[in-house]
Amino acid sequence: MTEYAPLDFRSDTVTQPDEAMRLAMAGAEVADDVLDHDPTMRLLEDRVAELLGVDAALWVPSGSMGNLIALITHLRPGDRFLAPRGAHVLDSELGTAAWLAGGMPSPIECDEGPGRVSANAVRAAAGVSGPYYTLRTALLCLENTHNSAGGSVTQPDQHALLVSAAKETGLRVHLDGARLWNAAVALGLPPAALAVGVDTVQVCLSKGLGAPVGSVVAGTTTFVAEARRVRKMLGGGVRQGGVLAAAGLVALGRVDDLARDHANAKVLAAGLTELGWQVDEPETNIVLAGVPDLEVTLNGLRHLGVFAGPMGGKVRFVTHRDVGDEDVAEALRRIGSVS
Amino acid sequence: MTEYAPLDFRSDTVTQPDEAMRLAMAGAEVADDVLDHDPTMRLLEDRVAELLGVDAALWVPSGSMGNLIALITHLRPGDRFLAPRGAHVLDSELGTAAWLAGGMPSPIECDEGPGRVSANAVRAAAGVSGPYYTLRTALLCLENTHNSAGGSVTQPDQHALLVSAAKETGLRVHLDGARLWNAAVALGLPPAALAVGVDTVQVCLSKGLGAPVGSVVAGTTTFVAEARRVRKMLGGGVRQGGVLAAAGLVALGRVDDLARDHANAKVLAAGLTELGWQVDEPETNIVLAGVPDLEVTLNGLRHLGVFAGPMGGKVRFVTHRDVGDEDVAEALRRIGSVS
Amino acid sequence: MTEYAPLDFRSDTVTQPDEAMRLAMAGAEVADDVLDHDPTMRLLEDRVAELLGVDAALWVPSGSMGNLIALITHLRPGDRFLAPRGAHVLDSELGTAAWLAGGMPSPIECDEGPGRVSANAVRAAAGVSGPYYTLRTALLCLENTHNSAGGSVTQPDQHALLVSAAKETGLRVHLDGARLWNAAVALGLPPAALAVGVDTVQVCLSKGLGAPVGSVVAGTTTFVAEARRVRKMLGGGVRQGGVLAAAGLVALGRVDDLARDHANAKVLAAGLTELGWQVDEPETNIVLAGVPDLEVTLNGLRHLGVFAGPMGGKVRFVTHRDVGDEDVAEALRRIGSVS
Amino acid sequence: MTEYAPLDFRSDTVTQPDEAMRLAMAGAEVADDVLDHDPTMRLLEDRVAELLGVDAALWVPSGSMGNLIALITHLRPGDRFLAPRGAHVLDSELGTAAWLAGGMPSPIECDEGPGRVSANAVRAAAGVSGPYYTLRTALLCLENTHNSAGGSVTQPDQHALLVSAAKETGLRVHLDGARLWNAAVALGLPPAALAVGVDTVQVCLSKGLGAPVGSVVAGTTTFVAEARRVRKMLGGGVRQGGVLAAAGLVALGRVDDLARDHANAKVLAAGLTELGWQVDEPETNIVLAGVPDLEVTLNGLRHLGVFAGPMGGKVRFVTHRDVGDEDVAEALRRIGSVS
Repeated sequence: MTEYAPLDFRSDTVTQPDEAMRLAMAGAEVADDVLDHDPTMRLLEDRVAELLGVDAALWVPSGSMGNLIALITHLRPGDRFLAPRGAHVLDSELGTAAWLAGGMPSPIECDEGPGRVSANAVRAAAGVSGPYYTLRTALLCLENTHNSAGGSVTQPDQHALLVSAAKETGLRVHLDGARLWNAAVALGLPPAALAVGVDTVQVCLSKGLGAPVGSVVAGTTTFVAEARRVRKMLGGGVRQGGVLAAAGLVALGRVDDLARDHANAKVLAAGLTELGWQVDEPETNIVLAGVPDLEVTLNGLRHLGVFAGPMGGKVRFVTHRDVGDEDVAEALRRIGSVS
Repeated sequence: MTEYAPLDFRSDTVTQPDEAMRLAMAGAEVADDVLDHDPTMRLLEDRVAELLGVDAALWVPSGSMGNLIALITHLRPGDRFLAPRGAHVLDSELGTAAWLAGGMPSPIECDEGPGRVSANAVRAAAGVSGPYYTLRTALLCLENTHNSAGGSVTQPDQHALLVSAAKETGLRVHLDGARLWNAAVALGLPPAALAVGVDTVQVCLSKGLGAPVGSVVAGTTTFVAEARRVRKMLGGGVRQGGVLAAAGLVALGRVDDLARDHANAKVLAAGLTELGWQVDEPETNIVLAGVPDLEVTLNGLRHLGVFAGPMGGKVRFVTHRDVGDEDVAEALRRIGSVS
Repeated sequence: MTEYAPLDFRSDTVTQPDEAMRLAMAGAEVADDVLDHDPTMRLLEDRVAELLGVDAALWVPSGSMGNLIALITHLRPGDRFLAPRGAHVLDSELGTAAWLAGGMPSPIECDEGPGRVSANAVRAAAGVSGPYYTLRTALLCLENTHNSAGGSVTQPDQHALLVSAAKETGLRVHLDGARLWNAAVALGLPPAALAVGVDTVQVCLSKGLGAPVGSVVAGTTTFVAEARRVRKMLGGGVRQGGVLAAAGLVALGRVDDLARDHANAKVLAAGLTELGWQVDEPETNIVLAGVPDLEVTLNGLRHLGVFAGPMGGKVRFVTHRDVGDEDVAEALRRIGSVS
Repeated sequence: MTEYAPLDFRSDTVTQPDEAMRLAMAGAEVADDVLDHDPTMRLLEDRVAELLGVDAALWVPSGSMGNLIALITHLRPGDRFLAPRGAHVLDSELGTAAWLAGGMPSPIECDEGPGRVSANAVRAAAGVSGPYYTLRTALLCLENTHNSAGGSVTQPDQHALLVSAAKETGLRVHLDGARLWNAAVALGLPPAALAVGVDTVQVCLSKGLGAPVGSVVAGTTTFVAEARRVRKMLGGGVRQGGVLAAAGLVALGRVDDLARDHANAKVLAAGLTELGWQVDEPETNIVLAGVPDLEVTLNGLRHLGVFAGPMGGKVRFVTHRDVGDEDVAEALRRIGSVS
């Protein structure tokens, strides 16, 4: 049996810190971020707040914790929140929106294409307020890009309509921007353009940007003060976190590199289509392919050293900085060799 | 302005205890049901368990508490549960499934008609088990009759298919049978025929059956022992509850009377249709009517002394033992007079 | 073996509704208290609010639910609350203060005698506010009479000092007044005199007053509006609850009868002392007796048809309207016969 | 005004990663620890499990998260847990034992000296099991060294007695070993000798050992599997965590260095005593000093560039690897200069 070098398309979370990032970590100025405020953390948080056009930001160990802190802050126990069907906060955070935030999720159908909901759908789902024994709807959770819908992008004008619909109906807005950088690069816009009007937003450093650990949740100064408290409660307050923040600062300098991942996704999608696969046109760095038998396909790919993952019944390939142009070409060659 | 005598079709929860029921309450043998076991409570619980074909039963102050106890017992924090879209446990229990049971609800579309889901939809929604970071699905919540779908009935064969699909996919089954009596009467079957295979079931005494207060949640002896504990935690353990159980026992003797409510619902639906309303054909004691402007219609009805309520954008009329044949005829006359 | 007629001193919760109460229940005017407002409920709630000197009140199925609603309303998740050691809310509500209200209990030692804490102890326990990573103390829970301390009474001047200490240190005050009637009767004061300055208070109708089911939680109009919502969430919203409220109204007319229970407690305590028991001097209707082996004593009493219960390692006898003067004398005779 | 170089005795959490540690981080072999298992993480976790004499271990971002995961795993909602008065899990984790684990804390008085409880106190607090409406006690939380009691050490024989008392009374045992390394060094024993018989144990890498971020929670393989899931739920699952684990591995090589901190604590205590302070004899690296006015003293020290913190009304000095022998001498000189 041939030994294939592994090509890992399972997720952009597998990206490894490179030399420059590791050096930055090794050289970071740090302090106890619980007692004081780690200086490199502060730099990172300020920089992210600026990029997102909000007042303040807080580093968190994971995107899940960032989203969870936002939900805990926005919801009173039992409040309903809306999110596009398939949203990470609905399907991929182990039910903590319910358990820890006491939130009652209500998925909205994606009536505007993959991962995209209309302002009317938001208005309809928000419902009307009723007597005291009525479920209250309190929050709209957006996700841009929308992971399970194949990295689909919500445009700034559509985003603005959704935020307006939310405000009209008395909802707050949280944006799960784990891959907001990808959306911004795909549209050629600054990230802040995609976060206009939201109450809170979470962005991830350890996906396509390649930092080893960390996300950032951001919003008003008041929100961040409360978020810092909730982070400590959840066990996410760390000491000399500047070593990780230093990697995050390097990562922020690499947003533009995501364009290469997007180009690679298009190449991969086109190649798979040529080989007869059913492939959704990628908008960013995620390629979804429908297959007759998911397990069979994933196993077959694994035998070729091509690692992909399942996503809503389809095969998900994610391009990222650790699978280069050559790797995409090689993956297509291997797949082609058995087609 | 004419003064109309009020005709209350808002809900069958408005039914009042009648003379016989009040006398039973006044004469009930009682004891401290927390320290010991109130004898009339025991009679009621045993009788309900028998009617439902399960081992044991527990009185609770409300159907919401019965459902909540079942969810708390079946779910580990963060577990997902399935329920037909519009289910009471999803939309009408103030998000407590999330807050108090830590459950992550996932609505299933009603692909088999109003309030009715298919076994395939259950299988698809149950999903497959994944690695440790995967949301677990643990429970299927059924509702028969389905309130917000207009009191629609799930047939025993369909019920059996749903239970099978749940068991196959490792799910437990809870049946919200707040109006299971109505389903049984509509089908001419004993209630137990509609609870076959479930792990837990809740039935209500204070809706169409006319008891002032109380529901019963039922299942295995082990479940009931745990349910008794959870009921105490929620503050639902009462002392001389036999006074209410006595009313419940009288109520259980009146299940067959629901046939009259169903007949009245059909008369009401036919009459409204004749008057040009868009009315869903009622299966039990609930009539849903689509109207151009819900608020305007409800207000108009109120001016006629005809009280109805909103349900998912439609007008809901509920027939019950306190609105007789004559009341239905009178309601139609009043509505006809302004059409 | 002689068959003794049972004399039940386990708790005043075993009191049974008498004829007058049952007639009141049978004749109560009722309505759906979730949709509208049951008229007899309203009468009861208004009457209790008046007796307690607060704005508004809400019937609940149990004292546990009343306390729980107050805690849920006053605490943010993780907040600390203070209560005298042995308080019902600490030891006898199944940990729901933590589970459901997210409250971190901190027992205060009873430095002013049984069940009584000093204002200085409150001030010391309240602590000082610290940085964001500091536990916040938010609430003082008082209990008058204090059950596990043997029905001990807090005097109004002491109560006032405790409320002042709480306010000074930024704490809210909830009063668990399950047996506040007993304290008032023992002091010859109106109940309102013992609830001065509290934010919320709970009183019970189904202990010494003899109603079969129900307590009342009271406070500001805003609190009661929120409490109504939380009651519905916990499953404590009932329909024609007026049947129970009617019993409660009768019970309220019997507060003065508690004096007889207190007299009986003194007789019982004196008699037991004469028989060589170690007995705490009762302040109200609870007699605590220290014994060498609790299980042995409780079993021995049971053989004599005298039912008592355990309380913090002692035997607890509770006098109430269903154990008259003669019953107390008879109990002492039986115990004397084997001493 | 003289500018003093700051001497930071507030906590050993302020320790900074040194050059060797930073190099290890920069060179760490890493992988996505959520999807796979980061190799350096695995090395660290295996090493800690071995040191503690348990089956398996799991890295967590903070000691608070480690304790919280243990509590969530051991407790059913509403269960009571015991801990020595002043324990970190009681007073310094923002009430999350209650909010997130649903646990009802019950402090045990330290009847065997500072931070030390007797087996009899555990037995008495565990209580006896009662009927279904009784609070269940499920867990004993130990803390060694006990932080707020001044870094006091529990000896292995005493530890064994406590574990036995817990097992006898049906309690599980969690050991908060944030400073277990200090206890081991003080006693000249391997850490495993102080974790005998526990169900779970948490140890910290970012206090005296100097790693920037991270603790480890350990126990059976089954526990660790569940802990991994709970860690992900809380948002503590990280990706290329090996960069932090590498620092942790270096830290583990420095346990013996803690002896110097202990020696410095003795020097500091002796020096302060000579200067007329009321100082508790330190057992490890924490010095508690009683002062007339805490705020005045802390401010005075701050003016001297000597940073200490408050702990239960006393001044707490913590010695650690970033305050050397010279720093201790200098601190004493500065304090002496104003005495």
